[in-house]
Amino acid sequence: MTHAELLHAIQVAWQNMQEQQPLVQCMTNTVASQYTANVLLAAGASPAMIDKPFEAEVFAGIAAGLIINVGTPTTEQVQAMQLAAKTRQLKSLAWVLDPVGYGPVLKWRSQIVDQLLTYHPSVIRGNASEIATLSGHIHASKGVDTLLDSRYAIDYKQALFQHTQVVAISGASDFIACPNMTVEVRGGSALQPKVTASGCALGALIAAYCAVTSPFVASVAAHVHFAIAAKKAAEKYSYVGHFNAAFLDHLQALRADDLAAHADLHILKLKQE
Amino acid sequence: MTHAELLHAIQVAWQNMQEQQPLVQCMTNTVASQYTANVLLAAGASPAMIDKPFEAEVFAGIAAGLIINVGTPTTEQVQAMQLAAKTRQLKSLAWVLDPVGYGPVLKWRSQIVDQLLTYHPSVIRGNASEIATLSGHIHASKGVDTLLDSRYAIDYKQALFQHTQVVAISGASDFIACPNMTVEVRGGSALQPKVTASGCALGALIAAYCAVTSPFVASVAAHVHFAIAAKKAAEKYSYVGHFNAAFLDHLQALRADDLAAHADLHILKLKQE
Amino acid sequence: MTHAELLHAIQVAWQNMQEQQPLVQCMTNTVASQYTANVLLAAGASPAMIDKPFEAEVFAGIAAGLIINVGTPTTEQVQAMQLAAKTRQLKSLAWVLDPVGYGPVLKWRSQIVDQLLTYHPSVIRGNASEIATLSGHIHASKGVDTLLDSRYAIDYKQALFQHTQVVAISGASDFIACPNMTVEVRGGSALQPKVTASGCALGALIAAYCAVTSPFVASVAAHVHFAIAAKKAAEKYSYVGHFNAAFLDHLQALRADDLAAHADLHILKLKQE
Repeated sequence: MTHAELLHAIQVAWQNMQEQQPLVQCMTNTVASQYTANVLLAAGASPAMIDKPFEAEVFAGIAAGLIINVGTPTTEQVQAMQLAAKTRQLKSLAWVLDPVGYGPVLKWRSQIVDQLLTYHPSVIRGNASEIATLSGHIHASKGVDTLLDSRYAIDYKQALFQHTQVVAISGASDFIACPNMTVEVRGGSALQPKVTASGCALGALIAAYCAVTSPFVASVAAHVHFAIAAKKAAEKYSYVGHFNAAFLDHLQALRADDLAAHADLHILKLKQE
Repeated sequence: MTHAELLHAIQVAWQNMQEQQPLVQCMTNTVASQYTANVLLAAGASPAMIDKPFEAEVFAGIAAGLIINVGTPTTEQVQAMQLAAKTRQLKSLAWVLDPVGYGPVLKWRSQIVDQLLTYHPSVIRGNASEIATLSGHIHASKGVDTLLDSRYAIDYKQALFQHTQVVAISGASDFIACPNMTVEVRGGSALQPKVTASGCALGALIAAYCAVTSPFVASVAAHVHFAIAAKKAAEKYSYVGHFNAAFLDHLQALRADDLAAHADLHILKLKQE
Repeated sequence: MTHAELLHAIQVAWQNMQEQQPLVQCMTNTVASQYTANVLLAAGASPAMIDKPFEAEVFAGIAAGLIINVGTPTTEQVQAMQLAAKTRQLKSLAWVLDPVGYGPVLKWRSQIVDQLLTYHPSVIRGNASEIATLSGHIHASKGVDTLLDSRYAIDYKQALFQHTQVVAISGASDFIACPNMTVEVRGGSALQPKVTASGCALGALIAAYCAVTSPFVASVAAHVHFAIAAKKAAEKYSYVGHFNAAFLDHLQALRADDLAAHADLHILKLKQE
């Protein structure tokens, strides 16, 4: 896939998302739930927070997308996540896993993630510490935030392809990899990590794009969509309160032309290299 | 009740709400809780999120208003909802039910709603799909969002008057009905459904108004209050981030005069017609 | 400690918080969680919402700060709170308790608070009704909001020093007391209580400052940080939506110089008086 082909695929995906407004089942944490829903609505998708074991299974069978985020899992939510992930796998439907806080300190949630991996998420999205640790390379984290550069974590991705098709790492630069290709997405803003749950919401947006394109193109599209909106918001606002309002504005205002004009993406590796 | 009488009743209700700042017990979903509280504070009421079975009953006995919203119920919350609804009925106190996602797909929550109906909510507030399905007319929904026009759903309301005094349906136009009168509220903005939980927060505002007037006038007042604030916000902002900040501003800035000057309401049917 | 020494200590604390970005474990309510995280990020700290019994204990042993807020406790959260508080006491680490809604109506949560007091929080932060009732002087509250002036509640503080080192009461004026000193912090804005969870987020900010200074200085610093940001936001915006975006902006934009220039604090009592 060339750079031009990838750009075109992203534009088509964005267009399809606007037309279909895919229904995304969100099983996420209490910090992220409102923001995730607002991000999906602004970007063109349709959120539904269905995360209880008594209805998660049936909904996972019909939703266009599914994000599972283990930020603040309750016992009921964990049961629901397992049922939903299993359903997606059985029906060959895409789903995205965000292993928030994965690592040696938070063992309970790390075990939940290990168990969810057996249902083969289409995309694993996290920060550098989470992805490195998931890959068997333990790196220090700070609570749920990373202390590792995304640039280095991407080198560990290979071990994860036994569980998933796509590994996406957010950071100063974002890296998205499938077994035969790695893409770097630049842009965005240093203010983004100052807004809570922006990574969580990004995972949900990947899930939305997965409803209209391949998991790899979906992951690149979601990161580009975020990076452009953040960059535009930061051009006008220097502080988080107004930046965040403008970020939501630009998620909504983005058009297919913007993707071509402003996407700052770089194909790093093809398998033969 | 004439158009002029209804307008006057709404203005008096608004004035009383500003003076009394009614305490509204909110049993709502994780997506909506912060937004609901901010909407109530902006509009002049006082929120309290008391939704656990160990304290919901006593609080339901003293709160000025109660909203029960089944967006993301936990087992503990469901127990609390039943205790609170029962208490309101026993004490002849108004309460509002928002049957989020009611329909054939989400059976668990639909059963919870069916059970809550036995405690006779004063108002049932929902979107067109939820109200149609509750009335026994199954219509397709998209997750928790409707695919049906509010204009048609209102025709099904009659079946619901065995359970409630007022049926309120939000949509491009809102419809509020009691057994002998139906009112259409126009205005608002197409951006409102792009802000998550705006319907949920509207239900809580109806509950606040119920503390100072009849459930029917309360329902019309809350819809008008929302429609004016949304319309004014949309005059200045075209995208959701800044629109939503302005919407909260205008909920707070609204005065009794605005209700008279900007309410776009239409009495559709009196019983004798 | 003189006025000048206190001001200097606050400035040093702010500087240290910017450099260390202390990791704050937040066990808080569903209304406050997103806002609390955004406030901490804006102010220079690093939030992690770890509130389940299966991982709260280990995290409480390593986090730089801990806030326990009983706004909407679940059974799982209550277990986690007890484990975390016990761990902080055993390791002689500071933690902050926010007894939301403490009083004769909400007995269940009041018992949870009573039990948490046995683990000796470094700071108890609340509104006037909560602090008065905790001190054994029952005063009427309105749900989780106070009907008592902070000016009077501070007189009751003495009884609480068997449980804690610092008592902080927010209101039109804020009062912060340790056994030998009471400080009044003025400023802020009447719009603050119209933004839900601002008290809850303030408690978390105290916990963040506790990682870099004494609990008393931390409490004063957090109240001053809030008061200056609120005052600046209110100079430009009169309504809650835009005020709140600007409040977050000013939490982030504040510099050490602002603390000296704008802190409106008054030492009321030294013990010998």
